[in-house]
Amino acid sequence: MSGDKPEVTVLKIGGSVIDDPNALESVLTQFAAVPGFKVLVHGGGKIATELATKMGIPQTMTEGRRLTDPETLKIITMVFAGLVNKQIVVKLQGKKIPALGVTGADGDLIRAHKRSPIPKDYGFVGDIDHVNLERLSGWLNEGLTPVIAPLTHDGQGQLLNTNADAIANGIAEALARQFKVTLIYGFEKPGVLLDAKDETSVIPEITMAHFQDLRSQGKVFEGMIPKLENAFRAIRSGVSRVVIGKAENLGDLLAGKAGTRLFHG
Amino acid sequence: MSGDKPEVTVLKIGGSVIDDPNALESVLTQFAAVPGFKVLVHGGGKIATELATKMGIPQTMTEGRRLTDPETLKIITMVFAGLVNKQIVVKLQGKKIPALGVTGADGDLIRAHKRSPIPKDYGFVGDIDHVNLERLSGWLNEGLTPVIAPLTHDGQGQLLNTNADAIANGIAEALARQFKVTLIYGFEKPGVLLDAKDETSVIPEITMAHFQDLRSQGKVFEGMIPKLENAFRAIRSGVSRVVIGKAENLGDLLAGKAGTRLFHG
Repeated sequence: MSGDKPEVTVLKIGGSVIDDPNALESVLTQFAAVPGFKVLVHGGGKIATELATKMGIPQTMTEGRRLTDPETLKIITMVFAGLVNKQIVVKLQGKKIPALGVTGADGDLIRAHKRSPIPKDYGFVGDIDHVNLERLSGWLNEGLTPVIAPLTHDGQGQLLNTNADAIANGIAEALARQFKVTLIYGFEKPGVLLDAKDETSVIPEITMAHFQDLRSQGKVFEGMIPKLENAFRAIRSGVSRVVIGKAENLGDLLAGKAGTRLFHG
Repeated sequence: MSGDKPEVTVLKIGGSVIDDPNALESVLTQFAAVPGFKVLVHGGGKIATELATKMGIPQTMTEGRRLTDPETLKIITMVFAGLVNKQIVVKLQGKKIPALGVTGADGDLIRAHKRSPIPKDYGFVGDIDHVNLERLSGWLNEGLTPVIAPLTHDGQGQLLNTNADAIANGIAEALARQFKVTLIYGFEKPGVLLDAKDETSVIPEITMAHFQDLRSQGKVFEGMIPKLENAFRAIRSGVSRVVIGKAENLGDLLAGKAGTRLFHG
């Protein structure tokens, strides 16, 4: 059946690309050349932290997550939904890609709920409840390329800071109901490494069983585990292909010449 | 013929509403209640200047226009396209209005060119060349309510700061080709005043000929002239109705109970 579905590529890029203008330019040029339907999901980068520092708003990170008080939510909205999102959109427009920059609030694209303050209060951080597939596929069928900033809303008038990997996952899983989905997780490393200190130790292919083996043997380094769990969740939810690697190598990641490809099994 | 066209309301709100949370809430509640197709265009407010000051970026205003150097363009993108736009979108979503927050770069909605640096260099300021009516009417027909931030693009990868009145005008004029358009210019005053110091001296109706008379007699105060010229230009371009007044009185402006209504003639 999936052979009959149109193909869509979902690319998630993170801070290391966003903070480096040359890397961003290279990724967007390669992304513009990807044929067919496509969606870009971006994180934030260091700019939010730098802006908060300049404005005297202390930032607290716990396990890689930003505690989002009301002032920090404003910073994130300015930087993620404003500066970063529109810089990507306007650059893609310059490459003749009809990009549409949105948050999860725009067009009611992604509903979320504020995470429980127990055991740990992260503030205005949201966990995804629902992705509006009809809206998303409508935009794709109009010829638009959605560029999604990592913010969602609760339907009651509140924006929520939401992890960009979780958004990429939610978008890919929703699209899998109508499309054959390739999800590319841009990452600082060239793929899943057997040895965290050796960038040539990329595992080209990994199944879920293999991942569980490596993990139980302590051979997958800590920072990789949530990303791999997200990725395998996407595959269990019907996403056809997940590739992890450097977004700067997007062409090679899509061609199967770089990165780590994840498989069911 | 225009009787057969669907109706659309275009509301432009400026800084005095955006800077006052109670006024904004009241305007958005009234806007949410407007039946039929609708579009909101917003300006910026004081927040951009406050943020620039905190970040040590001096701002220069000339004849009410902001000189837009690269750092100021970043501030404007953060505040107008990020903070202000998404705050409006999420509040409208909370009122069950499927708002879509965009700049002129999103979906290639508004193309502009950088204003000539001669005789005066305003920096990254854009004058509108083209509004993408197909995109805009597509979004309206999808049930979306566009919320437009005052930024456009040049199609070559450059964002441009663009006057919100000019955007409201361009949007209204483009829509007039397919819709019966009511354009509401939100303003600090309750309408066009005969006496700038007397808020009860609102002129309820004004024709172009009447405006020229008042103007030649020096009876229209300076700050009002560009707004009235824009408004009459919209009427000449096919916009059915233009009303100028306080956006906080939106319901009354639409009902003909407040503000100044402009007519051809």
